[in-house]
Amino acid sequence: MEALVRIEQALDMAVAYAEAPGAPPQLAQAMRYSVFPGGARIRPRLCLAVAHACGDDAPDLSNAAAAAIELFHCASLVHDDLPCFDDAELRRGRPSVHRAFGEPLAVLAGDALIVLAFETLARAGACAPQRLAGLTLTLARSVGMPSGIIAGQAWESEPRVSVSDYQRAKTGSLFVAATAAGALAAGADPAPWRALGDRLGEAYQVADDIGDAVAAEEDNGKPVGRDIALGRPSAVVQLGLAGAMERLRDLVKGAVASIPDCQGSDELKALVMSESTRLVPKQLSDRVAA
Amino acid sequence: MEALVRIEQALDMAVAYAEAPGAPPQLAQAMRYSVFPGGARIRPRLCLAVAHACGDDAPDLSNAAAAAIELFHCASLVHDDLPCFDDAELRRGRPSVHRAFGEPLAVLAGDALIVLAFETLARAGACAPQRLAGLTLTLARSVGMPSGIIAGQAWESEPRVSVSDYQRAKTGSLFVAATAAGALAAGADPAPWRALGDRLGEAYQVADDIGDAVAAEEDNGKPVGRDIALGRPSAVVQLGLAGAMERLRDLVKGAVASIPDCQGSDELKALVMSESTRLVPKQLSDRVAA
Repeated sequence: MEALVRIEQALDMAVAYAEAPGAPPQLAQAMRYSVFPGGARIRPRLCLAVAHACGDDAPDLSNAAAAAIELFHCASLVHDDLPCFDDAELRRGRPSVHRAFGEPLAVLAGDALIVLAFETLARAGACAPQRLAGLTLTLARSVGMPSGIIAGQAWESEPRVSVSDYQRAKTGSLFVAATAAGALAAGADPAPWRALGDRLGEAYQVADDIGDAVAAEEDNGKPVGRDIALGRPSAVVQLGLAGAMERLRDLVKGAVASIPDCQGSDELKALVMSESTRLVPKQLSDRVAA
Repeated sequence: MEALVRIEQALDMAVAYAEAPGAPPQLAQAMRYSVFPGGARIRPRLCLAVAHACGDDAPDLSNAAAAAIELFHCASLVHDDLPCFDDAELRRGRPSVHRAFGEPLAVLAGDALIVLAFETLARAGACAPQRLAGLTLTLARSVGMPSGIIAGQAWESEPRVSVSDYQRAKTGSLFVAATAAGALAAGADPAPWRALGDRLGEAYQVADDIGDAVAAEEDNGKPVGRDIALGRPSAVVQLGLAGAMERLRDLVKGAVASIPDCQGSDELKALVMSESTRLVPKQLSDRVAA
């Protein structure tokens, strides 16, 4: 089955548990609204691609891991959009969750999505108990303290922050977890896969900085130049547009080179190259693959 | 080792992971502030008491389960106190987390405590993989959707709500999870233990309604009559003070009667009776045991 179909089905099954009879209806709606329709599902696709390259001998578990990663990502978007953080009106081109459902339900939707992610993993992990603890710990560390995406968001409240620590936690950690979890779900050693996640996470961050700086609002669904307006660290500010594009190319090459030898490594290398062109606005994408 | 000592040590170990070098310092402080000093630790004590009654053959796992339950409880207090919910100034007699650290860090502290709870469980569960999935699912269901404490809080956003569904989710679910998790951590069947959690959860809720209605502010550390002022369902409003006290007595008796036969059942029965007198303001406590 195609990866994106597996991901959407796994997410739908997960959210359906939260919508069971007896659920408070508005929170159930807010959770589905937070997850569907999705963005590029880039993290869960990375997870499944690594699982596939490692043999994917427990597809229910890799589906659950991929879904959990996307649920964490969706939860972080809902909470990052709250009035006390970005106060974002729009997300993926329509009202953010707190604008659509109110702030209380946005807080609770984020909370419930975090819980649902762990629950989804445990449900699939009951059939592969030897892999569950490792998967849960890998994902928990990529999300929580001291260095997951929540820690990354917390650095925005600190007077001093190292840009690389901030970005590694805020964006990189979930990419690293996606590759490590893909390997773990397939019973493989996660260690050699972390470099791929690390480089792709940084590539994604640089591409996002490029997109933020140059794309038109209708192209990426959020106000242009927001990171720069908010004084956030940006590769474009640091390196200029041409420098940022060169950095992105180097990161993608490094990511491809880091892929360990395994049965599906050639396929995965081709996938990373083709996907990386989609990270930046269309008018720039030919410059990434060059 | 005495239960309370085990709980405080397990919580301290868990929070210490979140404070590792490289953590954003203010969020690390906000997390510790959210957990210490604690309240009565009634849920984790219930968890350990059931584990003890079931033989407690994996004390590291029951400690982790108890700590996870308390971390979920602390997370829910931090988020329930937020301006968009109760906007509570005080918690346990000192500034609430958002008053002390600001709203962004209060949102993130709650999020990170939820993640830390699952992480704590998985870390201990690596040594008892056959028990981890069941424990994780039991705790996730008691916290998330459709009927955990987050669902309970979400009922406050609904125009119509069944009082018993609301209270069962908001308070009862974590008490049921505490008894079930205590049994699961000790390798026992959780099913016969759920009734004990269910009754104690309701007893706790009724006692809280009584405390809210009659206690002086300095006695329970939060403004008196808040539930009533906010129009929340209350056993005192429904049954009067004498009726609520009678209901509480019946629930405690029912809880004691529900305890399954096991090696530690007599000890547990005595504990439930003695603890139940501590649930209500001192001037009323002799009326519970009567």
